[in-house]
Amino acid sequence: MTVTAPAGFRAAGVTAGLKPSGRPDLALVVNDGPLAVAAGVFTSNRVVAAPVTWSRVAVGDGVARAVVLNSGGANACTGPEGFADTHRTAEHVGAALGVDFGDVLVCSTGLIGERLPMDTLLAGVDAAAAALSPDGGDDAATAIMTTDTVPKRTHVPAPDGASWSIGGMAKGAGMLAPGLATMLVVLTTDAVLDAEQADAALRSATARTFDRVDSDGCMSTNDTVLLLASGASGETPDQAAFAVALERACGELARALVADAEGASHDIAVTVVHASSEQAAVAVARAVTRSNLLKAAVFGNDPNWGRVLAAVGTVPEEVAPYDPLTLDVAINGVQVCRAGGVGEDRSLVDLAAAREVHIRIDLHAGDSEATVWTNDLTHDYVHENSAYST
Amino acid sequence: MTVTAPAGFRAAGVTAGLKPSGRPDLALVVNDGPLAVAAGVFTSNRVVAAPVTWSRVAVGDGVARAVVLNSGGANACTGPEGFADTHRTAEHVGAALGVDFGDVLVCSTGLIGERLPMDTLLAGVDAAAAALSPDGGDDAATAIMTTDTVPKRTHVPAPDGASWSIGGMAKGAGMLAPGLATMLVVLTTDAVLDAEQADAALRSATARTFDRVDSDGCMSTNDTVLLLASGASGETPDQAAFAVALERACGELARALVADAEGASHDIAVTVVHASSEQAAVAVARAVTRSNLLKAAVFGNDPNWGRVLAAVGTVPEEVAPYDPLTLDVAINGVQVCRAGGVGEDRSLVDLAAAREVHIRIDLHAGDSEATVWTNDLTHDYVHENSAYST
Repeated sequence: MTVTAPAGFRAAGVTAGLKPSGRPDLALVVNDGPLAVAAGVFTSNRVVAAPVTWSRVAVGDGVARAVVLNSGGANACTGPEGFADTHRTAEHVGAALGVDFGDVLVCSTGLIGERLPMDTLLAGVDAAAAALSPDGGDDAATAIMTTDTVPKRTHVPAPDGASWSIGGMAKGAGMLAPGLATMLVVLTTDAVLDAEQADAALRSATARTFDRVDSDGCMSTNDTVLLLASGASGETPDQAAFAVALERACGELARALVADAEGASHDIAVTVVHASSEQAAVAVARAVTRSNLLKAAVFGNDPNWGRVLAAVGTVPEEVAPYDPLTLDVAINGVQVCRAGGVGEDRSLVDLAAAREVHIRIDLHAGDSEATVWTNDLTHDYVHENSAYST
Repeated sequence: MTVTAPAGFRAAGVTAGLKPSGRPDLALVVNDGPLAVAAGVFTSNRVVAAPVTWSRVAVGDGVARAVVLNSGGANACTGPEGFADTHRTAEHVGAALGVDFGDVLVCSTGLIGERLPMDTLLAGVDAAAAALSPDGGDDAATAIMTTDTVPKRTHVPAPDGASWSIGGMAKGAGMLAPGLATMLVVLTTDAVLDAEQADAALRSATARTFDRVDSDGCMSTNDTVLLLASGASGETPDQAAFAVALERACGELARALVADAEGASHDIAVTVVHASSEQAAVAVARAVTRSNLLKAAVFGNDPNWGRVLAAVGTVPEEVAPYDPLTLDVAINGVQVCRAGGVGEDRSLVDLAAAREVHIRIDLHAGDSEATVWTNDLTHDYVHENSAYST
């Protein structure tokens, strides 16, 4: 499992002391090669954390040797001083590992608007460098957790029987919205890839997985998804097979984020079918996953389909053409809305039976479809997020 | 106060029996003239309730004699049968009052996706018609309440000392988002206006008041704001003075909606200054009022300004140009963020002292500004909306 499952990688997770809780808070992932190929996808938020500014540039040449990740502080909205902290972190990692600091990517997560305690962090980097191990993936996955209750890991073998595989770890439980979902993700592979292939595969996979998770509609300043390729298997993968495996790895991690979202009691899959385009299907699904009223209703195990239609109706016609009088909605298989009006009795829907809820919206406007995942809106979400920084 | 304050209007509010609670649920407002001028602004949701479809057409000629409003059922997503119910209601009111049914506007509010019990409703219309009185405005304002805890009323005199005035009533406590906010509003005036003047004044006033309320990001299927002019004062108002008074009446009602929003413990004014345009200022303010994380933080009395910046950053540059590294944020007058980084100590901000919270965002990008109001995200909001239909 996780980032050290493919050959050519070592990792570590240690307690630097950044978190008041005393839990692990600093992770290091090192690519020992022979290749040092890397690709990254970052938040589309215009307000970005210092490590995003840094890593976006550092990964621009398609090369990276290591990723250092800290929880316990986002290093966002910390000004030029915050950027200097990130720069210094990369230099320190580079020196500890004997690699160019420009090949060190940095990720941070935690509270926005506070400087990181650099002495603590750099001592943690030394401890992590000393603890690096080919079995260190689980420790790394644990060290990047914030409000996550479980570490998120994946390991996907080559679908065509080849010997390469893809490993991955993720964190993220709140401020989860598309473009990207709020999170840090590191994916590793021992397949032989060039930077262009890695970048294309990563963009395609994230667009259909992490970008279709919207737990709470809030876009982060720190979202980062990285792919590192060591080439250690010596095998050049079939491109289609690699794309399938990477999308599966990303999909598993994205699903794990939803399953562990802050305070949630339901995972809600909103599937839009017969849309005029995939983009239209995503837009409609996203409008529904953003409805606080619907999310609160699902928390109350109330199949309030009127709130689904009210949300569908907010999508402009130029984005998603459909006729409101033909809309169908099914919740967990019960056709509660037919042709824009009342369908089966809503009391036939049992939302209490399972954590997963499936809402299917038929636009009768084409052949495309898409699914966006979200969570219900609960007392625990409000509680966790009203006290996060205090 | 309320819709019968200007001369030329009668109103009533009765208990038809549409609400299980037995509270008043049917209101009638009649314009006795001499003029029968009317204007309306409706939800921009594509999924609209039957009464919206009806009233949009009925008010199209700028003439209306009466408005019938019911709580206890939205008559939305009820198909052709639901539209027939609205049509029949207008006919019944027309017959009871001796006016053309095409001059009767209809508003409904309550649960989406259920037919109205027409026998109960039409008997209520008869009772309301019998109860019409020049003092009936308060009863009408009470009868349109759903989860509102108080009736919302206003009465604004002519600012220039003329004898005409503007009265109004509103309902709305949830599913409150721009375009319009979810609500029913009836405004009355005894000023002498023509239909074109009424329409222009109403559109301008709602754009700067109700459209800048966003309690929970959820756009309704039933939003309706109506203006009726009786001309009974015999005075033709100065257009600018009338616009000022109407915007004041709408502003007071919009503010009352926020003050009574479901489960809220704080009213939050998000003011964006030095924007490149008023549209840019509104877009940034709206992004912030949509942040569940910020709203939950305010509930916890936590001045988490990082969540303000994370929301500001989601607005595309083509909509609102600004440099993220120049952003300033003040919360209740404390400059917690300066130049995109850490400002004054956040512990200086006291959010527990008052219900009102003022967040001021300086974009340093121009001369325009705008304020959008929202509420905090609370346990009570989740509770009320997880059990609304059950």
